[in-house]
Amino acid sequence: VILAGGAGERLWPASRRARPKQLLEVVDGQSLLAATWQRARRIAGKDRVWIVCGREQAASHRRETGLPASRILVEPARRNTAMAVAWAAHRIAREDPEAVFAVLPADHLVPDVGQFARDMRRAADAAREAGALVTLGVRPTRPDTGYGYIQLGRAAGRAHPGLRHVRRFVEKPDLATARRYLARGGYRWNAGIFAWRADVLLEEIARHAPELHRALAPLRGPKAKTRAAVERAFRRAPSLPIDVAVLERSDRVWSLPTDLAWSDVGTWASLAEELGVGTPGGKGSPEEHGNRVISGELLAEGASNNLVWGGERIVALVGVEDLAVVDTEDVILVTKLERGSDVRRIVATLNARGLRRLT
Amino acid sequence: VILAGGAGERLWPASRRARPKQLLEVVDGQSLLAATWQRARRIAGKDRVWIVCGREQAASHRRETGLPASRILVEPARRNTAMAVAWAAHRIAREDPEAVFAVLPADHLVPDVGQFARDMRRAADAAREAGALVTLGVRPTRPDTGYGYIQLGRAAGRAHPGLRHVRRFVEKPDLATARRYLARGGYRWNAGIFAWRADVLLEEIARHAPELHRALAPLRGPKAKTRAAVERAFRRAPSLPIDVAVLERSDRVWSLPTDLAWSDVGTWASLAEELGVGTPGGKGSPEEHGNRVISGELLAEGASNNLVWGGERIVALVGVEDLAVVDTEDVILVTKLERGSDVRRIVATLNARGLRRLT
Repeated sequence: VILAGGAGERLWPASRRARPKQLLEVVDGQSLLAATWQRARRIAGKDRVWIVCGREQAASHRRETGLPASRILVEPARRNTAMAVAWAAHRIAREDPEAVFAVLPADHLVPDVGQFARDMRRAADAAREAGALVTLGVRPTRPDTGYGYIQLGRAAGRAHPGLRHVRRFVEKPDLATARRYLARGGYRWNAGIFAWRADVLLEEIARHAPELHRALAPLRGPKAKTRAAVERAFRRAPSLPIDVAVLERSDRVWSLPTDLAWSDVGTWASLAEELGVGTPGGKGSPEEHGNRVISGELLAEGASNNLVWGGERIVALVGVEDLAVVDTEDVILVTKLERGSDVRRIVATLNARGLRRLT
Repeated sequence: VILAGGAGERLWPASRRARPKQLLEVVDGQSLLAATWQRARRIAGKDRVWIVCGREQAASHRRETGLPASRILVEPARRNTAMAVAWAAHRIAREDPEAVFAVLPADHLVPDVGQFARDMRRAADAAREAGALVTLGVRPTRPDTGYGYIQLGRAAGRAHPGLRHVRRFVEKPDLATARRYLARGGYRWNAGIFAWRADVLLEEIARHAPELHRALAPLRGPKAKTRAAVERAFRRAPSLPIDVAVLERSDRVWSLPTDLAWSDVGTWASLAEELGVGTPGGKGSPEEHGNRVISGELLAEGASNNLVWGGERIVALVGVEDLAVVDTEDVILVTKLERGSDVRRIVATLNARGLRRLT
């Protein structure tokens, strides 16, 4: 199940409402969604992949993946991941209640598809055999304050070597706390990549998220697949992440600790890190000085460690460092990389001024 | 005599070969040339203004000023200011050898036209009555290493109060020297704004710049006004600034010290200073944080002391300081203001790559 409903305004102005983050061609001219589709295909046959997304995105996602309309679950409203995942669980449970499914956010960067597939197979085995809700626990590489953390607990048992119970979840710690986690070990980033049995997830929703469980009632009835049932369910559903609604409360949650390289590409800074901004590249090129060019052409003079998202125009940088420069048809963004999360405020300002066409 | 032949590649990419600095609308939507034309008109009748420029610029300069073609001296080649001024001196001397003329570079910023006119009248009086070569000596406001300096000498005499002999010229001192000049006083910026009699200038050229004098021979003959004579003269003329060719050597040079606000707008940094970048402006606007917008629209979030030359696109700045951001149809420049003189190297790179259409 690919979750592809995100807006991703932190990568504005490259990402827009009409061109969300997962459609951006960030690496090697491939969109994040296309890369996610490839990862999904490595762990599931084509006829076993589902996409959950919004109305605006459905058509482009169909084109990108070639999936039939019946496999694209179009949300009538945005209700965060708990509802998206619960809806998919109901649809899958109709075909096979004990089916194990994986949840893959469409806008993450996971360069090593092979490692990803190996990890997911182990997670799926644990989900199938032990009925666990399994979340990937990515080893932190920096004290990031934008991610949720998992504290690993005791080993899951001999049948599932490496897997661990989860002691607790911590959402976006402050910098001092994040540094402590990194130094102490035993903490992992919660990547939002999961594997579980449909029936187990629905049981745990019933147990720990009663409000959501009640909202799902129309999806359990005989007319579950009708548009009216779906709309009724979404109207009543709380808007919650699945982590908060279920995982933080359930005692069936395991984590698979992994060294998988992973980023949610939430800000220009995290994208810059993934692309190697700051590390010297090709000699005699702008990359020699730690610059990286996603698209367009860069001329650099005494400029280092910048990320350039160019368009038709040449981008000339002189004497500047640690910037993201993003050129689009109607907006140019120049941001200090470390301040990239403030880009949201520009988006808010534009919306407040009635300039939604720019957001 | 307005000198309007400059290329001004330091304000690239706003300035181009086909759109030199003097045509840029830098302040209040008025081009530097148009402002220079207004200054010239304050000190001379319309039929007494000349423009010296290159072939590419002649048509637009005629449109801008309404001057007849006979008053626009089109240089067959670029030979720096000594030749430009000497040619004008010959043309003026044919009408009136003792005529006093002023030399006004077309790409400088002189906001106070009234003060300018008063200064020029005093300079012209000294030139007319004492036969002096008079240069404006602008009081330095910072230890600029891009300007030439004048060391003031003894007073010129009771008939011309305030005017001073020039002890010596210093071209572009290093920072320590420039600081010393500023602290010690008695030093002025050589603004490249002059007043002198045509005959006196030509005498001093004959005395101190023999090579230039010989090259000028065709302009003294009976066919002086023909294209062939002009081309012959330019072919043989050395490429020298008038300061170096004559003023540094002549003992008839006076300076009029003045507090006139003046900038040669040679770099994005000097333009930024003239426009008040770094000083808080309108409350609640991006200018509050010391940003200045020449054109286009700026959205700023934690961004201060930046100069924006925008186009059609909105420019969004987040967490950046002391930048010039210049958006044009085919190039975007982002430069640290203090590194603005390195912009020339980008221009050189583009020319070397055969991308002259961008320079």
